[in-house]
Amino acid sequence: MITSISNKKIKELLALVKKSSVRKKQNAYIVEGIRMFKELEPEEILEVFVSESFENENKGLLKNIYPEYETVSDRIFDSISDTKTPQGVLAVAKRKEYTIDSILKEAGRPMSLLILDSLQDPGNLGTLVRAAEGAGITCIIMNENTVDIYNPKVIRSTMGSIFRVPFIYVKDLKKVIDKLQSKAFEIFASSLEGATEYDKPDYKKDIAFIIGNEAAGISKDILDIVEKKIKIPMLGEVESLNAAVAGSILMYEAARQRRL
Amino acid sequence: MITSISNKKIKELLALVKKSSVRKKQNAYIVEGIRMFKELEPEEILEVFVSESFENENKGLLKNIYPEYETVSDRIFDSISDTKTPQGVLAVAKRKEYTIDSILKEAGRPMSLLILDSLQDPGNLGTLVRAAEGAGITCIIMNENTVDIYNPKVIRSTMGSIFRVPFIYVKDLKKVIDKLQSKAFEIFASSLEGATEYDKPDYKKDIAFIIGNEAAGISKDILDIVEKKIKIPMLGEVESLNAAVAGSILMYEAARQRRL
Repeated sequence: MITSISNKKIKELLALVKKSSVRKKQNAYIVEGIRMFKELEPEEILEVFVSESFENENKGLLKNIYPEYETVSDRIFDSISDTKTPQGVLAVAKRKEYTIDSILKEAGRPMSLLILDSLQDPGNLGTLVRAAEGAGITCIIMNENTVDIYNPKVIRSTMGSIFRVPFIYVKDLKKVIDKLQSKAFEIFASSLEGATEYDKPDYKKDIAFIIGNEAAGISKDILDIVEKKIKIPMLGEVESLNAAVAGSILMYEAARQRRL
Repeated sequence: MITSISNKKIKELLALVKKSSVRKKQNAYIVEGIRMFKELEPEEILEVFVSESFENENKGLLKNIYPEYETVSDRIFDSISDTKTPQGVLAVAKRKEYTIDSILKEAGRPMSLLILDSLQDPGNLGTLVRAAEGAGITCIIMNENTVDIYNPKVIRSTMGSIFRVPFIYVKDLKKVIDKLQSKAFEIFASSLEGATEYDKPDYKKDIAFIIGNEAAGISKDILDIVEKKIKIPMLGEVESLNAAVAGSILMYEAARQRRL
């Protein structure tokens, strides 16, 4: 059992929890909590760490899923956990690998994509991933300025949807948007200057919604190449909605139209 | 200038920032940041604290709004601020006082209410207040188990909507719901067991939406007295949406129907 915070494995683990660059380099991320741990396929798991208490209560479960786990003292587990009330189990998992081409080829029609331009808040991203699964989004496409989807706070707030919604980071969103437009996708940019109310367009075709940064919105060079700007009407003195709320309202309007 | 954290005024201020019970007892709350500070009416302000840097840069502004401010060192301001990058100004403000009767009497028709049953997350509440203003909600009604709307995190995430959306805490939600039903309000409970898809009812009349606790949903005794249970359809394996997202989708569906 590991009982020291200066243990080499614990130090490496902490770097994975805290640093996006380390997660990227190692092509790995952290999955914490019993429910999400159980959703991992055995071949996705690289390492498992459990607290002493968790081990004592879950020997059977661990044996079935991943018998070569590492036990750490409860105190150490608390200090590596990203949550206030740790459940006592976390896995280092292999990252997902999706490509746009394979996603678009395999998806059912009509497709609906969510494009995120420099979204910054981990809670917003996680909440959007969760709503995206619920609304039947085909894939989430993000630029590299968007918060790391493998950030533990994002993972947690997806409530497991991270395992089920395909996503991809791209260097150049403009290129991707050009490509989608050439494949007859209709791209809708959510913008405060949008001329069209969001519930007016027909979303029963291949579409993509673009949501921008929480403070700055969608960057100008992206807005310039997108024809359709839509807005969510706001009463009172509200200047904008929370980005996760705005994105979810758009995704659910598309889902609503498709159910009609 | 106050330079010590053990100063009596600073201690009292910290209690107001951190403790719901102290805020309640003093009938006060904290408004932080330049933008929200400017939205306060002079008669709402009880006290103002600014950092030394803020004072140096904003003498004119302070003189106009509230000349009897207290200056604290930048270091002290950082330690009382609830934000990571404090702007250097916070006010102790008088709490709002609304009554359901006066709100219902003065509101335009049709009315739409948001009822919250034991919502716990400050970010969710703030986000809902913001979306409620945007969607034209008449009033937010919460039971006493709901997170304190005067929590600094809630205030911040309302982005100013806290000043504009009427809200009220009630001891007994059931009584309020009975009263609303007697006044011909249609009450819709958002529930995973809901039989009706949320976009099917007609919301162009006096309505109320009930949103429950993030983990447990709406309590059984409330569900028992509400006839109309609605659900937001979810694809994939999603079991529920984030509470702020779910509430916003419902409020915006009502707003959408009313614009038609």
